[in-house]
Amino acid sequence: MISGIFQQVSDISFFFHPISVAVVGASPIPGKPSYVIMESLKTMGFSGTIYPVNPRYTSINNLRCYSSIAEIEVSIDLAVIAIPAPLVLDALKDAAKLAKGAIIISSGFGEAGNDGRKMEDGIKEIVKETGIRVMGPNCMGIYDTVSMVDTFFVPAERMGRPGKGGISILSQSGSFASIIMDELASEGMGVSRVVSYGNRVDVGESECLEFLADDKHTEAVALYMESVDDGRRFVEAAARCAKKKPVLAIKVGKREAGISAAKSHTGAMTGRYEIYRAAFRKAGIIEIDGYEGLKDACRALNIFKPVKGRKVLLITDGGGIGVRIADACEEMGLDVAALPKTLQKNLAVKFPAFYGINNPMDLTGSVTNEEYLTAIEDGLKDDYDMAIVALLWGPPRLTEGLVDRFVETIRRLKKPVLICSPGGTFTKRMNRAFEERGIPVFTSPESAARAAAVLVNTKGK
Amino acid sequence: MISGIFQQVSDISFFFHPISVAVVGASPIPGKPSYVIMESLKTMGFSGTIYPVNPRYTSINNLRCYSSIAEIEVSIDLAVIAIPAPLVLDALKDAAKLAKGAIIISSGFGEAGNDGRKMEDGIKEIVKETGIRVMGPNCMGIYDTVSMVDTFFVPAERMGRPGKGGISILSQSGSFASIIMDELASEGMGVSRVVSYGNRVDVGESECLEFLADDKHTEAVALYMESVDDGRRFVEAAARCAKKKPVLAIKVGKREAGISAAKSHTGAMTGRYEIYRAAFRKAGIIEIDGYEGLKDACRALNIFKPVKGRKVLLITDGGGIGVRIADACEEMGLDVAALPKTLQKNLAVKFPAFYGINNPMDLTGSVTNEEYLTAIEDGLKDDYDMAIVALLWGPPRLTEGLVDRFVETIRRLKKPVLICSPGGTFTKRMNRAFEERGIPVFTSPESAARAAAVLVNTKGK
Repeated sequence: MISGIFQQVSDISFFFHPISVAVVGASPIPGKPSYVIMESLKTMGFSGTIYPVNPRYTSINNLRCYSSIAEIEVSIDLAVIAIPAPLVLDALKDAAKLAKGAIIISSGFGEAGNDGRKMEDGIKEIVKETGIRVMGPNCMGIYDTVSMVDTFFVPAERMGRPGKGGISILSQSGSFASIIMDELASEGMGVSRVVSYGNRVDVGESECLEFLADDKHTEAVALYMESVDDGRRFVEAAARCAKKKPVLAIKVGKREAGISAAKSHTGAMTGRYEIYRAAFRKAGIIEIDGYEGLKDACRALNIFKPVKGRKVLLITDGGGIGVRIADACEEMGLDVAALPKTLQKNLAVKFPAFYGINNPMDLTGSVTNEEYLTAIEDGLKDDYDMAIVALLWGPPRLTEGLVDRFVETIRRLKKPVLICSPGGTFTKRMNRAFEERGIPVFTSPESAARAAAVLVNTKGK
Repeated sequence: MISGIFQQVSDISFFFHPISVAVVGASPIPGKPSYVIMESLKTMGFSGTIYPVNPRYTSINNLRCYSSIAEIEVSIDLAVIAIPAPLVLDALKDAAKLAKGAIIISSGFGEAGNDGRKMEDGIKEIVKETGIRVMGPNCMGIYDTVSMVDTFFVPAERMGRPGKGGISILSQSGSFASIIMDELASEGMGVSRVVSYGNRVDVGESECLEFLADDKHTEAVALYMESVDDGRRFVEAAARCAKKKPVLAIKVGKREAGISAAKSHTGAMTGRYEIYRAAFRKAGIIEIDGYEGLKDACRALNIFKPVKGRKVLLITDGGGIGVRIADACEEMGLDVAALPKTLQKNLAVKFPAFYGINNPMDLTGSVTNEEYLTAIEDGLKDDYDMAIVALLWGPPRLTEGLVDRFVETIRRLKKPVLICSPGGTFTKRMNRAFEERGIPVFTSPESAARAAAVLVNTKGK
């Protein structure tokens, strides 16, 4: 046996393209998690074979329902286990005989006291003895716009499902993953693979990162971490992944209260924050400060590729907001570089004398649609790596038609253009129009600066 | 003359309850700023006398239109001047003969090069010679839900007007004030007095603070500062005001880019940030980090009074979000104090064993409406100064009826309860329901923590 020394890279790829899924505890009764899972597989259009398992029924959703996993008799990829905790061990033993992996949705394990911990140890033993791979327990499982698997058991009317996108999300917390997905969906943003592994008795972020590094459907990875499964393996996997695509992480449970909360939440020992920071740096992970930052990062990376430099051009029609964005950008380590003389001269002949042709560029309340587009096109031609456009909708000469032309410009330019539009009813309607056309809008100066910082991979001076 | 030594407290109160207003440059042509101002005075139901002034018209809005200010012949409180910059000096000279004060909306002064600066000096001379008091130029002027004056010249369809509330906002930047107002309006929040004084040749934040300190309609003051009008007077005025009500400030133009942007924006020399921080501390001002923080503060202070202690109870049905809020609260200097034994015992008999009866309190996906209310009522009875409730709408037993009961509980309790509900379509609809009932919702852990920190006046360790 040399596996202890030369660790084999495991194959967990079947979690991400299963061709057969058993739903253990499948139910035709609305409101039950397993009902939602059955419905979701239908809604998603999962094209593989579904095996409902529940001794109480003979058919569910016009599919034959099996009285036990054993009754399925053929090999399957995944068993999704959604039954009360005390029944899980027996079901998992059955599953191990014919399934490559199991997602255990059920809660009531390590997070729920001594009895739960004992059952959780039982899961670990089965994994060790049989070789079945397990996600969970106490998790939401997988939401995947490639394989069309969705085990997130919150009904669609309470939690929107994002469309196809390039971000994959790994999260110990199911609620964290759910609200990010829900928000992204409501803004028309997409995701690739989302994994909530909860108590993480077996498969965790390290193996998922190993898979995602080579996954062509994943353009960036966002991690929510309370703790780490295997520090060394994590740093290696993350470093390999970060060489190919941006890897972002938010570490929670940083301080005293957070640490004890995390412990009672997923039973995780969160460890010292400083060690995580060092590991993130070593692995090339972009550390994100909070939920807001993670959301901003997802929205930016959904449409823009990271850039090499850190020179940002700020364009606005509202002087005050421009000043605040300049501050926020510098706080995030971006370079709000002065406008080059040639660009200044070039724009001076195109714009009225009272426009502020600097960085930030203040086009004032007199701005027209045309001038905004000129400022962006000319501004991004040479020196700057990206632009933040603080587009306030007050100026009377700005019309709704600007949205389409703006979107066309953004899609044509090779450099990221982040739109920052805080405001009320009218602005929110315009923001919605941008989102419907696939362009995210950032609704505060800070939010835009955080997103820009992710694109240049800088995190403040 | 002893005024140089014993400075008299000036009276600028007529700006905030004028009984007569002249609109110089009044126009019946939609799209013109002065048209918007005339319309706004009508919409607001301003009950004083309005004198439109424009030699081209004999009547506007069924009001007699005067060919010049001089023609008005009676004393008036305010002249709102909205004409091209080169005409302003003459108009102001006329106004000085019969008006106590003028709001100069026009731009093209100190912010627009040498010629503008000369005209701005001209304004200063007129102020000095005649004693007329001036707000502006290059400003939005006043939006006031007490006096019903509104000189913000952006049409209502582009910028919503907030209803009556307790927050007064002082801002050098008109756009900053506008977007905050627009956002608050769209969320059903109110304001008291908003002043944008732009280039600030005369009346600035110090005198406004002196007025607001004693203004019974103002419960809290929020300041957006690029620079300060008179450092010593400002600290005195702010300190006096802060003894009576919370005073918040955001300082922009902190760093290099921000500083040069502010200079070209309102001609303001922003000065060293460290000096401002020291002044804020001395005056008892709560410093706010950015636009997001200012918005959060306005929303919290619109409904809740500041508290004495800093112990915060966190209640949630989503473990992960609870952990992040705990972190964010500690980062903001709040005390996420452990649950007292007696409270723990009390709740242990009311809740299932698998709920996390700690701080954060994790009511899990099994939570009911009733249990949420119990947790808040019992939790806030003794030890905690406030609560943040991270209400995620996934749990199937939470129903829309919770909103009304929640609002009733929040209004009845003597302590602040901040709701934090990030999420998509369903959540946003529930958030809207809260807002329609006058309760703000914070849509990220960080946002809720920032708001909580304002209520305890702490800004991080």
